[in-house]
Amino acid sequence: MIRVSIIGSGNVAQHLVSAFTKSADIELVQVLVRRKASLSCELADNQIISDYHQLQAVDLFIIAVTDQAIAEVAAQIPLQEQLVAHTSGSVAMNLLADKHRKAVFYPLQTFTKGKPVDFKSVPIGVETQRQKDAAIVKKVAGAISNQVFEINSEQRKALHVAAVFVCNFTNHLYQIGADICEQHQLPFDILKPLIEETAAKIKVLTPSQAQTGPAKRNDQQTIDSHLEILDGSQKAIYSLLTKSIQTHE
Amino acid sequence: MIRVSIIGSGNVAQHLVSAFTKSADIELVQVLVRRKASLSCELADNQIISDYHQLQAVDLFIIAVTDQAIAEVAAQIPLQEQLVAHTSGSVAMNLLADKHRKAVFYPLQTFTKGKPVDFKSVPIGVETQRQKDAAIVKKVAGAISNQVFEINSEQRKALHVAAVFVCNFTNHLYQIGADICEQHQLPFDILKPLIEETAAKIKVLTPSQAQTGPAKRNDQQTIDSHLEILDGSQKAIYSLLTKSIQTHE
Repeated sequence: MIRVSIIGSGNVAQHLVSAFTKSADIELVQVLVRRKASLSCELADNQIISDYHQLQAVDLFIIAVTDQAIAEVAAQIPLQEQLVAHTSGSVAMNLLADKHRKAVFYPLQTFTKGKPVDFKSVPIGVETQRQKDAAIVKKVAGAISNQVFEINSEQRKALHVAAVFVCNFTNHLYQIGADICEQHQLPFDILKPLIEETAAKIKVLTPSQAQTGPAKRNDQQTIDSHLEILDGSQKAIYSLLTKSIQTHE
Repeated sequence: MIRVSIIGSGNVAQHLVSAFTKSADIELVQVLVRRKASLSCELADNQIISDYHQLQAVDLFIIAVTDQAIAEVAAQIPLQEQLVAHTSGSVAMNLLADKHRKAVFYPLQTFTKGKPVDFKSVPIGVETQRQKDAAIVKKVAGAISNQVFEINSEQRKALHVAAVFVCNFTNHLYQIGADICEQHQLPFDILKPLIEETAAKIKVLTPSQAQTGPAKRNDQQTIDSHLEILDGSQKAIYSLLTKSIQTHE
């Protein structure tokens, strides 16, 4: 059994606690949170702590807190020479404390409070300061996910940017779709099968093969007619994405 | 049994042929195509025709051809006073021939050659020139879909624009994600679980509730660091969508 402790109580921390609790290969030793009540999961009372000095030595600490808090949280772990990973896509591994063996444990997924995630299909990017630590972090990741891969800092940053496009920005396009529906007395539900199928297509086609629409067809008449009914911000996004589709190689 | 004939052999036509063939309430009378070989489905040989003068009178003709060809195709139907619908999100109903009772049968979905679609969940927007024809078109739509709704031309146009955002533009964001992966020697497959979950979240959360990421958090440090590794076109899209998320009410 590999001994793991988690620091944090946000979405990522909660989902990791659930996943590790279910794994036969991992002993989840402690979860450190600021307020005990903030952790909604099945753990023995003495496993949940809020005092850093109660932390026991383990094989891997996972810090799952907001980007801004990572450095401070890491510095507060009193134990020396521990293997400590953060879960952020954008924070440099180097910001972890020098007294520890630094690592990154980056689950590439969007976590929603209360919505269970099948961790087996969540890709986990692993980065370690020392090569010999990679085996431990990969073993922990492999205990909950079928998709574990080593990456370097530059690749992790690229993945995080790519995730912003396919997740955060895509969700904003859903928002614009919902706004347009609302502006024309249509229920947003009408768009949901299309949203689902657009994502599903990507499993069997490349994005290039899946691309359709007036921009792809260079159908200027439809493009002009669409621009007529959009407001300023919607219009700017429509124009820019249309141009990007048309000039994409 | 309601008698329906289809004109066209593209993706929409093919998917409609499959759906009507399975429906107990619809008799698919004829399918008119330019070249017989272009229709890959199970129909009796004499049901597939390519001469407009062989067309029989039916309860509803559905013209499923490219936007540009709709008017010409409609004009070629020699029968008078027939109920004729096109399937386009953007073409005016009025472009159909004046000798017919005009209608629109707009399935709001993205159709891929060879990828079956469960038509039961495809919303179909129905528009008719004469109110009394609405019942027939809705009955035909209802025979293959559980989501049939009457819309007016302005709503159909709005739906089409919304569909461009949540389907065509979303797919282009997948393309940019794939490009970034390729530029950093990462397989695009890594992003697929995230793409799937982003679409799945929309079933249980509003887009506003589901919005996350550096733009939403006003995390300027991460935004700046992301912009550094993007090329010109990617950078423009990143900046505009970030600003749009930040200023969205």
